[in-house]
Amino acid sequence: MTGRLIGVGVGPGDPELLTLKAVRALKEADVVAHFAKAGRASNARAIVAEHLARDVIELPLLFPVTTEIPRHEPAYCSRIDRFYDESANAIVRHLERGRCVAVLCEGDPLFYGSYMHLHVRLAARYPTDVIAGVSGMSGSWSAAATPIAQGDDVLTVLPGTLCEAELARRLADADAAVIMKLGRNLPKVRRALAHAGRLERAIYVERGTMADALTLPLAAKIDDEAPYFAIVLVPGWRKQT
Amino acid sequence: MTGRLIGVGVGPGDPELLTLKAVRALKEADVVAHFAKAGRASNARAIVAEHLARDVIELPLLFPVTTEIPRHEPAYCSRIDRFYDESANAIVRHLERGRCVAVLCEGDPLFYGSYMHLHVRLAARYPTDVIAGVSGMSGSWSAAATPIAQGDDVLTVLPGTLCEAELARRLADADAAVIMKLGRNLPKVRRALAHAGRLERAIYVERGTMADALTLPLAAKIDDEAPYFAIVLVPGWRKQT
Repeated sequence: MTGRLIGVGVGPGDPELLTLKAVRALKEADVVAHFAKAGRASNARAIVAEHLARDVIELPLLFPVTTEIPRHEPAYCSRIDRFYDESANAIVRHLERGRCVAVLCEGDPLFYGSYMHLHVRLAARYPTDVIAGVSGMSGSWSAAATPIAQGDDVLTVLPGTLCEAELARRLADADAAVIMKLGRNLPKVRRALAHAGRLERAIYVERGTMADALTLPLAAKIDDEAPYFAIVLVPGWRKQT
Repeated sequence: MTGRLIGVGVGPGDPELLTLKAVRALKEADVVAHFAKAGRASNARAIVAEHLARDVIELPLLFPVTTEIPRHEPAYCSRIDRFYDESANAIVRHLERGRCVAVLCEGDPLFYGSYMHLHVRLAARYPTDVIAGVSGMSGSWSAAATPIAQGDDVLTVLPGTLCEAELARRLADADAAVIMKLGRNLPKVRRALAHAGRLERAIYVERGTMADALTLPLAAKIDDEAPYFAIVLVPGWRKQT
């Protein structure tokens, strides 16, 4: 008898944006696993803290410190791959004892989430469910009360990690766009938006659906400091005015 | 004293994918408005039925029958515009009496949703909140247990209403793609996927997160019958294998 793996989307930050299904999964789980950087509390765990059963087994999955290794080098990739292998093995030990293991995922589990690395290692071997969550981008455009796309609009989701020329090319071709993974990429993203003629429409959103969310036109943001999870929105739907 | 407008995302279909915040808004609302085609029950209302207070005022917003008018003709646009004007006015009558009006939206309110047409008419005039919801596409890739995008992947969201050449051009340039609004557009979408060399990777999802969801490789679907809300997924993230 083996257990069950559940990827649980916990939404973009506001604990009230948990789904009823996620709450039920947390109540039923024997083990709750959550990713965090070593030395930091897990954001996903903080979102669901009030729903964790007292006797639940917690399994923190702590990312290795890799700041000294450039992320396109083989040494980085092999270290991260090893981390996901070890994390999957830690979960397997619980699954083999028949336990239900819920893996917490900020936003939606299968949309740029760390859970995906466990999913591809385990889903073919164990019964697996994925509980969709409210994505960070949905939380951001809702916090900004900004309609993002309508009708025949094409929406392009761009990681800010792309090179400037590629960002500019894709922004110029998009009706609506979302740029994620900002952090140190913000100066480059700003230049790409200007090059594509989209800077005036761009909206910067920080801490999406937290109580202290910040939204402002990117052109009005005077510095280029941004957390990694900040988002830039370029709304489509010109008819809205 | 005026009321408050709330756009409430009710998720892609499974009533358990409602958020805690949506449930609270439904309990607090004086009026619950929902879009439906004339003569049909509202899908959004069906999703939240068990959470509606007994004494809540319901405000059905019934789309005019427009099947006889091609959708790019001025007659169609003016009829639809008039419908949204009248719907906004019906809501205003409640807001002016100090009532809290929740407008139900399948999926996420600001992502290709009908609510957006009310939002742009009312949000500047009345206190307004938008409660993000799980999108139909998140529900679909979760039902299919298919990681959609990871790392540096660009995700392109395409309405199936675009012309075949434009669909093919954008599909060829996408790492990952979601094609919405299928219905009678499916044969065209299939040809565009084939032309872009993406047909083999495409997954067809019908009734996303309902109990009777259907997911299969599009290449294995032998007919071109599809409901409007069916979705085609083209997963990115080649490393997953």
